[in-house]
Amino acid sequence: MKIAIIGGVAAGTSAAAKASRTNPEAEIVIFEQGSDISYAGCGLPYYISGVTETKDKLIMNTAGEFKEKYGVEVKLKHTVTAINPGQKTIDYQDLTNSTTGSYSYDKLIISTGASPIKPPLPGIDLENIFTLRSVANAEKIKAMLKTADTSKVVIIGAGLIGLEMAEAFSKLGLKVTVVEMQEQVLPQFSSEMAALLEKHLKDQGVDLILGDGVDHFMGSGSVEKVFTAEGKEIAADLVLLSIGIKANSQLAETAGIELGASGAIAVDEKLATNLADIYAAGDCAESLDLLIDKPVWVPLGSTANKQGRVAGENAAGGDSVHKGIIKTSITKIFDLTAARTGLTQEEAKSAGIETAAVKIKAPNHASYYPGREEIHLRGIFNQQTGVIVGAEVIGGAGTDKRIDVLVTAISQQLTANDLFQLDLAYAPPYSGPKDAVAILGMVAEKKL
Amino acid sequence: MKIAIIGGVAAGTSAAAKASRTNPEAEIVIFEQGSDISYAGCGLPYYISGVTETKDKLIMNTAGEFKEKYGVEVKLKHTVTAINPGQKTIDYQDLTNSTTGSYSYDKLIISTGASPIKPPLPGIDLENIFTLRSVANAEKIKAMLKTADTSKVVIIGAGLIGLEMAEAFSKLGLKVTVVEMQEQVLPQFSSEMAALLEKHLKDQGVDLILGDGVDHFMGSGSVEKVFTAEGKEIAADLVLLSIGIKANSQLAETAGIELGASGAIAVDEKLATNLADIYAAGDCAESLDLLIDKPVWVPLGSTANKQGRVAGENAAGGDSVHKGIIKTSITKIFDLTAARTGLTQEEAKSAGIETAAVKIKAPNHASYYPGREEIHLRGIFNQQTGVIVGAEVIGGAGTDKRIDVLVTAISQQLTANDLFQLDLAYAPPYSGPKDAVAILGMVAEKKL
Repeated sequence: MKIAIIGGVAAGTSAAAKASRTNPEAEIVIFEQGSDISYAGCGLPYYISGVTETKDKLIMNTAGEFKEKYGVEVKLKHTVTAINPGQKTIDYQDLTNSTTGSYSYDKLIISTGASPIKPPLPGIDLENIFTLRSVANAEKIKAMLKTADTSKVVIIGAGLIGLEMAEAFSKLGLKVTVVEMQEQVLPQFSSEMAALLEKHLKDQGVDLILGDGVDHFMGSGSVEKVFTAEGKEIAADLVLLSIGIKANSQLAETAGIELGASGAIAVDEKLATNLADIYAAGDCAESLDLLIDKPVWVPLGSTANKQGRVAGENAAGGDSVHKGIIKTSITKIFDLTAARTGLTQEEAKSAGIETAAVKIKAPNHASYYPGREEIHLRGIFNQQTGVIVGAEVIGGAGTDKRIDVLVTAISQQLTANDLFQLDLAYAPPYSGPKDAVAILGMVAEKKL
Repeated sequence: MKIAIIGGVAAGTSAAAKASRTNPEAEIVIFEQGSDISYAGCGLPYYISGVTETKDKLIMNTAGEFKEKYGVEVKLKHTVTAINPGQKTIDYQDLTNSTTGSYSYDKLIISTGASPIKPPLPGIDLENIFTLRSVANAEKIKAMLKTADTSKVVIIGAGLIGLEMAEAFSKLGLKVTVVEMQEQVLPQFSSEMAALLEKHLKDQGVDLILGDGVDHFMGSGSVEKVFTAEGKEIAADLVLLSIGIKANSQLAETAGIELGASGAIAVDEKLATNLADIYAAGDCAESLDLLIDKPVWVPLGSTANKQGRVAGENAAGGDSVHKGIIKTSITKIFDLTAARTGLTQEEAKSAGIETAAVKIKAPNHASYYPGREEIHLRGIFNQQTGVIVGAEVIGGAGTDKRIDVLVTAISQQLTANDLFQLDLAYAPPYSGPKDAVAILGMVAEKKL
């Protein structure tokens, strides 16, 4: 059996590893257009800031190691130019020497990822305007910081990457301005929770320009100024574009593979596409939103890893499913952790669920134990049933714990009272006798 | 309405506060035989080690503050000598002046707690043999450490308190020996997981004597030596007895209140006893084990707080339940966190469930982010259904998160595959792309 995998980052390498374990006899080939496989995209901000010291640490396996561990052949700098589902072949080009070739597969896994959106603004092609998606991107940014006299950075877009990079650049001593078209940072959060982050960013010296977009860039050769739609002019030695990403689904679409409304590849829970023997996984594919039973596109490393594993197992003859997601995300922004999961009030309303939002503040652990920090929790509860359908948690140490408990609770449709009843672990260094999650449940129960 | 509460620590003060909010008109009186209310018993080891600097920090509310906040009268140094359910009165003695009195109640809440077991061993009444249950106990130990030349401590019993105190005494520069009758520390853990703790304790310089009990103590006035059943002789300037506690249920039993098989007070989910208008809550009362649907006695601060709240609400005319527990516990022992929840393999077997244990080791977060630590997880899975029924987690930072996710998962009878599917929050500082809990699920699924 021959398994071809297009793209060798999170989903592609997970798929290859699992396929190899499922069917050690299979011939598995990864076609990766870049020069690295299995790098940790989520680690790029930490590599730039120096928190992660070397590039090697970000690369889980080199092509050679991958071959040795899993018996998988990795063709680096090979771009796949066409999928031919009728012949069950893919056409590729070797970017090193421009030769082309064709590979015939029994099963194909598409894990082509996603690419940063680069809007066609005047000046967008000036030097020192970067995106951040690959190790190569990060190397370019690091090289510039090392060689050029860089002091002012403008980040366009206040999503996860934008804010993680605001921290990274600030830690390097740069003056950071973040420009965001929406009226708040992290649009997946409610405005009242986002306000906590905005205050924290400002306290850390980051300038925030909200509700304003970029109109154009100016500079001679290199970018020097960013002009916003509202007429603001911001000096910039370096610009990071982080307004969003789009699924790399065109190759699939051209081959007749169905895309979802999001523009990413439509898959079922086995990660199968509409065409026989072709799977898709990772940032190029949709997932099922388990709470509204509809496909959504939320490209994240955790989902890519799960989907890759499931696609790999199924391609190799196994039987596995990825049931779906509830849109959990988490990020560290300076001293705060910001996490969310489940439905927003607006999404719940669209799904016909009337909700009440309950916001509390609770300590991460006992008051008399050192290192107490505050955690803000906001739960979205179904008003009729008391079931929790969404949550946001922002705060210090222990924020990640509370979101993961709430992820599990929301997945299981627990009610406010159920949150109170949970027999969560208590000792002074870990929580109060009533955990923050239990307090959220108690307050919600009273309000509902 | 008059509500009397016997005992004013965790459950009693929770009950009083909730009763007062439920029915602000009620006359609520707490009878507490000690000289403090609402102190954090779980914080005593940290007070002794100095991590918690002052006694005040351990006391959530003084009697005066409690009166002011909740309108609840607190009678300190008042011991209740009898409950008269027929007359609906309690008899008490004021320990300050030995006067006695009687109080008539409409509703009564018994929250008399538990007391350390002090076995009738030869020499047990020597000076400098302590138990640790109250602020007064802690003050005595601190006073001795301050005034006497203390360098060698022997702790009898390697349960939660025993091991927390091993850390506390070690941090104070004392040489600590722990003597435990069972063949392992923390008997609620499996022997393979307990071995991780035993190694860590030894690495920290703690001497462990397992599978051996105390035969007698010797000394002139003060304890000087501990002799074990196996004939070992251990020099000791101070002995801490932490072999266990027993429910303070005799007052209730004498009044005709039913006890459970454990010797603690039997209650229903409303925390009602067998006698009308009498509730019990906290360390003197049983709980329902939700996994085997049988009453058990697992006295812990988290349960005491919940039960107190529920008993208080019900006594004041509300309608609330405490559904039960799954025997979760957690403790910090030097640099390790040790936590457990649910059934052991032996308990599952007694309940007719054949299980398989699955043990893995996973990092707390991404390898390239600083501060990576190892976490050991051991799950107990129902062999027929794949449902997880119990778990132990021991390791560094993030251990508390994994146990709380597993608590939630076990409460909801999730399967191994469900653990893999959970959309847990991923970013490099918080987990790997596959969280430790997901990995446990994956490995279990393969094994089952």
